[in-house]
Amino acid sequence: KAHLSLMGNLVLRQQQEIKQLRADLQAAGSNTNGVLLWKIPNFKTKLAEAKQKSMELVSVPFHAGDNGYKLAASVFINGNGSGEGKYLSLYIKILQGEYDNLLEWPFQLPITFTIFDQCSILEKRVNVIESFLPDTTWKHFQKPSKDQEPMGFGYPKFVSHETLFTRNYIKDDTVFIKVNVDTATLLGP
Amino acid sequence: KAHLSLMGNLVLRQQQEIKQLRADLQAAGSNTNGVLLWKIPNFKTKLAEAKQKSMELVSVPFHAGDNGYKLAASVFINGNGSGEGKYLSLYIKILQGEYDNLLEWPFQLPITFTIFDQCSILEKRVNVIESFLPDTTWKHFQKPSKDQEPMGFGYPKFVSHETLFTRNYIKDDTVFIKVNVDTATLLGP
Amino acid sequence: KAHLSLMGNLVLRQQQEIKQLRADLQAAGSNTNGVLLWKIPNFKTKLAEAKQKSMELVSVPFHAGDNGYKLAASVFINGNGSGEGKYLSLYIKILQGEYDNLLEWPFQLPITFTIFDQCSILEKRVNVIESFLPDTTWKHFQKPSKDQEPMGFGYPKFVSHETLFTRNYIKDDTVFIKVNVDTATLLGP
Repeated sequence: KAHLSLMGNLVLRQQQEIKQLRADLQAAGSNTNGVLLWKIPNFKTKLAEAKQKSMELVSVPFHAGDNGYKLAASVFINGNGSGEGKYLSLYIKILQGEYDNLLEWPFQLPITFTIFDQCSILEKRVNVIESFLPDTTWKHFQKPSKDQEPMGFGYPKFVSHETLFTRNYIKDDTVFIKVNVDTATLLGP
Repeated sequence: KAHLSLMGNLVLRQQQEIKQLRADLQAAGSNTNGVLLWKIPNFKTKLAEAKQKSMELVSVPFHAGDNGYKLAASVFINGNGSGEGKYLSLYIKILQGEYDNLLEWPFQLPITFTIFDQCSILEKRVNVIESFLPDTTWKHFQKPSKDQEPMGFGYPKFVSHETLFTRNYIKDDTVFIKVNVDTATLLGP
Repeated sequence: KAHLSLMGNLVLRQQQEIKQLRADLQAAGSNTNGVLLWKIPNFKTKLAEAKQKSMELVSVPFHAGDNGYKLAASVFINGNGSGEGKYLSLYIKILQGEYDNLLEWPFQLPITFTIFDQCSILEKRVNVIESFLPDTTWKHFQKPSKDQEPMGFGYPKFVSHETLFTRNYIKDDTVFIKVNVDTATLLGP
């Protein structure tokens, strides 16, 4: 009986460890070059769900620069705010990172969002692209703290559903979103 | 009894998860710069086994380009086809990848295979090297599909056993194979 | 009873696997660009412990070059040798790596150690920096072997405790150490 209980404890601890490993793995696998390529499969099912109930999808974290800023993208495929119901909304969030004390704040690297036209002939693609330079007076770009949830900054009306269902933005029921943080001006630690 | 059974289920599920984590880890660890360096230890034992029964060794998958093509190398150390019994055969396979819908097809990046002479004096090494440019009319380089096993393309007679046992191609019973995919011309997504 | 014992064995084996996965993950996550950024949290507690009993902290392994040298940093926060009790000592160790037979020996890449001043205004930082070129006649830089523990090479008096408690070398009870191996001259395999 005691043996059984001990083993039970062990199994539970292993479950925790596996969970942590999975999280670490995502972090290790994530690029540090400031580029996130985000694959969203089962898009139509997710859109139907989001029409029932507002739903935010958050990407795996990624890094801009070696030991740099930690970020994540956020998408509301049925839109939120001014885009609700008719647009896909797309945002960036600055997350608390391991190396924040070494980095420059506020965050001020240029960011580009892309949704790919997955046409098999590359020359014929018409991607949806938007770029912006962070306004460093905004709260979204200050050094993250424990006490505050990261706030998304971006485009409530990134692309309309009407447009999204044209061309090859959705292919094999999958959408690809790229977030590109321009680290060229980054003076890394 | 019920408790025991539940725990049994949990342990089995953890085993699955560990297996998946290991696979993910290999993928995360694999370079995306188009270079595979493949270490094959216990070479002589493997060769003896292959002489008994034809045996293909397949490398871990690797990627050419960030979010690029997914490939693997394949080696028959006792040869296959025209190389059987007297040569080491070496091939590349284009695997189904996460980002295939964003990439250009057929695959047309130049590929170089190397087997290293592990002489401790770098200047004296005589590596075995072969390069080729994919012939885009071949089936091997078309966009991979679920319905078709990837086919290896390469050299049935990459290096003869006679040569392989000279110099330092085998050192500490280990052979190193490098596959280099030239991504310089790659217009990544 | 037999069932229980079998499951116990399985759980133990899984524990081993998780441990191995964690190690592999560290290796996969470690950069190959020759840069280690090492975060040491709970610094003051560690220093108090080290004052009771000499204590070496060893970093995760990192790599210089793709498939290159494997290294680790070593720190005695209460000093050792001539630095004992009054300095932080900082060393590099060349570890046995997967690809040692392909690499050039002795090791001769330039190394730079940095402890960061974590001042939030980057221009005002005064980092502690030391660089050296390995003396290739020293044992520390020869090809590692199984029979010999890696020996640390570096600075017993890297920075005095007196200095360390000034400016922002310690912030949020955390110290950041960077080790930079200059791979510019590396002719990788």
